[in-house]
Amino acid sequence: MKKLDICLSPDLLKLYALEGKIAIIVDILRATSCMVAGLGSGVKSIMPFADQYACEQMKKQNYVIAGERNGEKIEGFDIGNSPFSFMEQKNKAIAMTTTNGTQAISMAKNAHTIIIGAFLNLSAVKNFVLKQDKDLLIICAGWKGRFSMEDSLFAGALAEVLEKDFFPEDDSVLAAKILYKNSKSNILEALKEGSHYQRLKRLNLDKDIEFCTKIDIFDVVPILNGSEICI
Amino acid sequence: MKKLDICLSPDLLKLYALEGKIAIIVDILRATSCMVAGLGSGVKSIMPFADQYACEQMKKQNYVIAGERNGEKIEGFDIGNSPFSFMEQKNKAIAMTTTNGTQAISMAKNAHTIIIGAFLNLSAVKNFVLKQDKDLLIICAGWKGRFSMEDSLFAGALAEVLEKDFFPEDDSVLAAKILYKNSKSNILEALKEGSHYQRLKRLNLDKDIEFCTKIDIFDVVPILNGSEICI
Repeated sequence: MKKLDICLSPDLLKLYALEGKIAIIVDILRATSCMVAGLGSGVKSIMPFADQYACEQMKKQNYVIAGERNGEKIEGFDIGNSPFSFMEQKNKAIAMTTTNGTQAISMAKNAHTIIIGAFLNLSAVKNFVLKQDKDLLIICAGWKGRFSMEDSLFAGALAEVLEKDFFPEDDSVLAAKILYKNSKSNILEALKEGSHYQRLKRLNLDKDIEFCTKIDIFDVVPILNGSEICI
Repeated sequence: MKKLDICLSPDLLKLYALEGKIAIIVDILRATSCMVAGLGSGVKSIMPFADQYACEQMKKQNYVIAGERNGEKIEGFDIGNSPFSFMEQKNKAIAMTTTNGTQAISMAKNAHTIIIGAFLNLSAVKNFVLKQDKDLLIICAGWKGRFSMEDSLFAGALAEVLEKDFFPEDDSVLAAKILYKNSKSNILEALKEGSHYQRLKRLNLDKDIEFCTKIDIFDVVPILNGSEICI
């Protein structure tokens, strides 16, 4: 039976083997939701950057540059970290840097395959991993290394739909499933209790947050291919 | 209002400020349960060691040496990591090293006060922290850096009884409370789902595990005083 593990924070990633696995990067609010929404709406490719300066340089190569730190758009960047902004960039190549999500992607580079997960493409991710003969590691981007509720809820949702096909490796899987089971009837409401929601709410991002809790809006699985994420 | 944070793994401790805080070390299976049971039964003091060799040297100074790695007693040590063994050491000084719990204690040394928590002394810990004018950090010892269900359940139990007096700092508190709420009617049953239980069960430690889930058996709060834990 294939194995499933959940890494609740990028700061715990060193405890998990990545080699030969599919790594699913999750940053529900909002990096991976943006990637799914963008690529599902016709964006050509997204190049993730951990480093802000390196991302900004891509402007010279005609990339749309998307940058967020602490929930806010970085000054001088074309767009921030809103799924709606990403959905407007049809046929464009985007270079993107965020507080948590793009950092997590760069830390997972030893995985066999890196894919992008969000509530927006939950079933597409499920169907993709079921077809692969690989163990799975769900990597929650968290908030500056800390545990985050929304990413863990997605991990629990995915663990639940995969429970017949994957053996859970440790207690993180059990916990994420309990958290999701407790909240699945109203994910938005559950997120409203979380600290990230409180942080983003102050920035008037209610519409973004609500959209990021919608399930299966896009039937796409973004995959990191070299330095770019495409579908 | 005083603040409450939960560090779900010692490997995340660098993200949390310790200065000026009360740190509560939690390793339900079984280090902190042993400490509470022992000191609550007349053990004179417990000196925690991260290092096995340093602990073993204390034998020459007439300490009872208690040592565990991967759930099993270390060869040549007087006792392992069973609360029942600790309860038999009345008036003795114990030197102790374990896989997770004593490591977490040594990592928390910058806290203002370090105390020892377990289900066995839940209310005593609650009453102690309510009297102090200090923020609180609950440090889950976990399993080799990974999240563990039993430590998080205790953290959730303590967060629940303190919720009127402490402001939760991040989503870890919210998650631990949900996990505890989901399991409080039968903690032992919840632990049986966890990986640590499966690990210890193979070593025939059912009696230990059951005892470690009992609430308020001892009205003591072990405190680290210099290099020794006393009540």
